[in-house]
Amino acid sequence: MTDPVNRALLPAGLRDILPLDAEHEAEVVGRVMGHFAAHGYERVKPPLIEFENTLLDGAGGATASQAFRVMDPLSQRMMGVRADMTPQVARIAVTRLAGEPRPLRLSYAGQVLRVKGTQLRPERQFGQAGIELIGSDSAAADAEVAVLAALALVTLGVTGVSIDLSLPTLVPALLSELDLSDQALRGSLDHKDAAAVAALGGVAAPLLSELLKAVGPADRALEILGRLDLPPAAAAERNRLASVVTLVQAMAPDLILTVDPVENRGFEYHTGVAFTLFGRNLAGELGRGGRYLAGGAEPATGATLFLDSVLAAVPPAKPAKRLFVPAGTPAAWSSAYRAQGWVTVAGLEPGADAEFEAKRLKCGHVLTAEGIKIVEQGA
Amino acid sequence: MTDPVNRALLPAGLRDILPLDAEHEAEVVGRVMGHFAAHGYERVKPPLIEFENTLLDGAGGATASQAFRVMDPLSQRMMGVRADMTPQVARIAVTRLAGEPRPLRLSYAGQVLRVKGTQLRPERQFGQAGIELIGSDSAAADAEVAVLAALALVTLGVTGVSIDLSLPTLVPALLSELDLSDQALRGSLDHKDAAAVAALGGVAAPLLSELLKAVGPADRALEILGRLDLPPAAAAERNRLASVVTLVQAMAPDLILTVDPVENRGFEYHTGVAFTLFGRNLAGELGRGGRYLAGGAEPATGATLFLDSVLAAVPPAKPAKRLFVPAGTPAAWSSAYRAQGWVTVAGLEPGADAEFEAKRLKCGHVLTAEGIKIVEQGA
Repeated sequence: MTDPVNRALLPAGLRDILPLDAEHEAEVVGRVMGHFAAHGYERVKPPLIEFENTLLDGAGGATASQAFRVMDPLSQRMMGVRADMTPQVARIAVTRLAGEPRPLRLSYAGQVLRVKGTQLRPERQFGQAGIELIGSDSAAADAEVAVLAALALVTLGVTGVSIDLSLPTLVPALLSELDLSDQALRGSLDHKDAAAVAALGGVAAPLLSELLKAVGPADRALEILGRLDLPPAAAAERNRLASVVTLVQAMAPDLILTVDPVENRGFEYHTGVAFTLFGRNLAGELGRGGRYLAGGAEPATGATLFLDSVLAAVPPAKPAKRLFVPAGTPAAWSSAYRAQGWVTVAGLEPGADAEFEAKRLKCGHVLTAEGIKIVEQGA
Repeated sequence: MTDPVNRALLPAGLRDILPLDAEHEAEVVGRVMGHFAAHGYERVKPPLIEFENTLLDGAGGATASQAFRVMDPLSQRMMGVRADMTPQVARIAVTRLAGEPRPLRLSYAGQVLRVKGTQLRPERQFGQAGIELIGSDSAAADAEVAVLAALALVTLGVTGVSIDLSLPTLVPALLSELDLSDQALRGSLDHKDAAAVAALGGVAAPLLSELLKAVGPADRALEILGRLDLPPAAAAERNRLASVVTLVQAMAPDLILTVDPVENRGFEYHTGVAFTLFGRNLAGELGRGGRYLAGGAEPATGATLFLDSVLAAVPPAKPAKRLFVPAGTPAAWSSAYRAQGWVTVAGLEPGADAEFEAKRLKCGHVLTAEGIKIVEQGA
């Protein structure tokens, strides 16, 4: 006996999205992209696959271990399936759109694939929707991108949206200026291990210990950071963070704003202020972003929303009002009801019991000679 | 010297979709899917990749040579990247949605990838949007799907939309009933080579020659077909085609309807009435569809629109009304203008010349203390 194909079995981390959920996802993406478009972000759409060396160049290198590879039979060169869209959009900005005025505001939405999921995010295909603001190194650009991404979540109905600002370049700048290249010290800062930082920090231990305390609500964190006597490069980083906080608070006073100046995990290619987006009572992050160099040279900042997490956090879609229209009904009648917002479901068999068919096909209403009639949903 | 990465180079048949075009594509997809949803078609979203044996099972086998393959590092099994979404949607219908009432109406939109393009269609990635109507073998189902797909094009502004109905099962049924298994004859019918059909057709030559003439406007073609003295199975096929034509004409009298009873190229897995969609003065087909067996057993019919061809055929998008908002403008002001339909483009540098910046950033209007001012676009 041959092994029958199990047609319902999908590879781990991949799934079929079924009715209502798939519609809801498309509707949520449409609203997010409309929000970005209303703020002047213009949509681009890179291909799902491209040559490995362009896909993984620069910032894309962070996803090198995550991208599926296929051979291109036409060129005999290796191609990669995108695992992240930001590097693709940055590539478009510095190549095809190099002649467009700066700052350049671009948006995107699409699917990405990853070779393996993570413990926290087992999915291997998920949707991304995001924005890139390219060609400005101002704090106003950092603030605009973080606020727009957070407000996209607010627009969708996510409650208690917070921006957690971080500064992945602060610790490296500080350790370099203090001539502290100790990997163990760096690791203990990454893990916020106060005891190890105190033990390994030497003369800088008091400063580094204070830095570790500057985690939490933005105003308090900035107050602690403001008191620190930082060397010039680290002080400049701190001051930039303070500017971004002030701008974000002015733009969106209702957002919750926290700061973690030591956090740098997941910000592999970031070169300045970065951020993570959360919602109240939600375990995972809903999006992230931050400053980087597009094409390795041009100042840029961007944000990506993780659509599967976002979808789990927004109120569910309302089911459509379905109207069963018996076979033989004039097309103009159905059309008139659709124009009023009804979803029409056409009967295919003339003479069938319309009310029975309506109920069977999950229509709450049926069209009769006397107009629309409610279908009894009970037994 | 190492070879620098040419960051603008994409593999043949793959491309970046740039601003306005990408937005237009998303908007067109949204309208098509809204049209299908209004007729009771519920959206599903299968993954981009799945196990090779489910992807290429049954109807999917037609795309076996078109699908990129990758190894799944988790299961060590081969996966395929979808080259067509119809087999995936049919798979969902007969597995996850097996318990849902029939007829089941599903819709989908997404990207597919192909290993190689064709002469006519060099793209290796393109969008599909379509519908599947599963669980009905009625002529009304054939007509509904063809008409809905054609009216989607009309809704988008494509002019002179035509449905070209074909019957890829007619010639095989006829030849089988006439005990004519000659491959050369079959080929001459496929190529509409009247001289060869007359030479190879033997006693059936007059009948087959008449059949070749039944190509063109539906009414005339049906009249010719109606006069033919066909054996039972072929006659049943012909009568089904006539029923579909009558229903399509009643549902959408303004559509152009043609018949080609001999055409079977490109209808590899179809088991009944099939169709191709065209627009006036357009070279390529805009969509196609027809009857098949979902999961190899359940009667089904569906239609797919080829989004790249469709996009080339619809009127271009109107550019947005862009309003430059100088840095420091209260957020509530911008928000009020967005609510009126403006796209706002925020200035990032306080004190910059607002009118100059507006013009540079392609905004037709600028927000001033006195309200909205038109930006002079001349030198």
